[in-house]
Amino acid sequence: MRVRNVKNKNEILRNSNYVINNPNDYIGKWQSVFNNSNPIYLEIGMGKGNFIIENAKTYPNINFIGLEKNGSVLTYAIKKLDGINLPNLKLICFDANNIDLLFFKEIDRLYLNFSDPWPKERHAKRRLTSPKFLDKYEKLFKVNIIIEMKTDNKNLFEYSLKTMSSHGFIIDDISLNLTEREDFPNIKTEYEEKFILKNNPIYFVRMLKRVNF
Amino acid sequence: MRVRNVKNKNEILRNSNYVINNPNDYIGKWQSVFNNSNPIYLEIGMGKGNFIIENAKTYPNINFIGLEKNGSVLTYAIKKLDGINLPNLKLICFDANNIDLLFFKEIDRLYLNFSDPWPKERHAKRRLTSPKFLDKYEKLFKVNIIIEMKTDNKNLFEYSLKTMSSHGFIIDDISLNLTEREDFPNIKTEYEEKFILKNNPIYFVRMLKRVNF
Repeated sequence: MRVRNVKNKNEILRNSNYVINNPNDYIGKWQSVFNNSNPIYLEIGMGKGNFIIENAKTYPNINFIGLEKNGSVLTYAIKKLDGINLPNLKLICFDANNIDLLFFKEIDRLYLNFSDPWPKERHAKRRLTSPKFLDKYEKLFKVNIIIEMKTDNKNLFEYSLKTMSSHGFIIDDISLNLTEREDFPNIKTEYEEKFILKNNPIYFVRMLKRVNF
Repeated sequence: MRVRNVKNKNEILRNSNYVINNPNDYIGKWQSVFNNSNPIYLEIGMGKGNFIIENAKTYPNINFIGLEKNGSVLTYAIKKLDGINLPNLKLICFDANNIDLLFFKEIDRLYLNFSDPWPKERHAKRRLTSPKFLDKYEKLFKVNIIIEMKTDNKNLFEYSLKTMSSHGFIIDDISLNLTEREDFPNIKTEYEEKFILKNNPIYFVRMLKRVNF
């Protein structure tokens, strides 16, 4: 997502109650941040935050953490939260490459919404569903690994189905046009809203990897 | 596929060198029908035969068996084969429900092209990728199970990805619009040709289940 640089972004992040500025300190201890034992759902690449904020409003008994590496983008989400009190939402400005330094056996679900498709083959490793990232995710989860993915990018979707399937995931739910699914309580991202207006399909999959003890 | 009843269909089937009229006799012995040890690829629901006939022409070192339950439909394929000699092709008029009575540890690949989607939930068992059928297919294969599927039906495709994934298959290759794939040596069915003219997507997946000894 391209946005203009927000000059006072560091100040905005520092002053927000939603932002955890020392996230590494909480590895293995995120439950204590929320002060309850509710499940923790994580979104990597939350962008301007509509998805995670609306989820936090809709599901007060689930804790949500949004990760966004671009500090300027994150200020847009913080602006949306002005005057709103959501104790079940925290935001982090962090690069997903080091996600395994943030969480350890404490996440219940991971959302990857409209992630960068990195279309060039030589950049495949940077895709958030590359085997490299799938390996990293393994350590984050409490028990079973659940990844929900939405994208408008056909190639990224095909790629992700292959990598996750090879990685031991099974397809728990899938839709090749999520907007047609009346039974699905879909909370949309900013990007998704724009894309739906163009009448293009939204691809969705929920992948599940059962972990045996 | 709806076609008019061909009155002398039984006679046409009986007189064709391509048709095996006593297929049950060959269970476990299909290699002997072809008199070689080449791989055997099976298509269930071959319809008017374009896919399997063109495959047999293109890949002389693979043996192809086409299954079609509707005898009238099968006569169209036989007509196409008039004057053509393809020793690596055999056709069978048979209902897929009893597929496990025809083959035992001798198939290398299964093709399911534009199978009946059976859209009603109460008919889900009749879909050729239902768990019931996937169980039956297990016995047919020499070693690893490889199923290649093409369809224009989104719901059938989503359903099949879920059932096969839950059944231990991994996605070896997938395309949400096969006609865009320039690297794929696609041989089209009669139905597919018509569908492509409408510019609608053709869904394709190759599913693989490795069998351990």
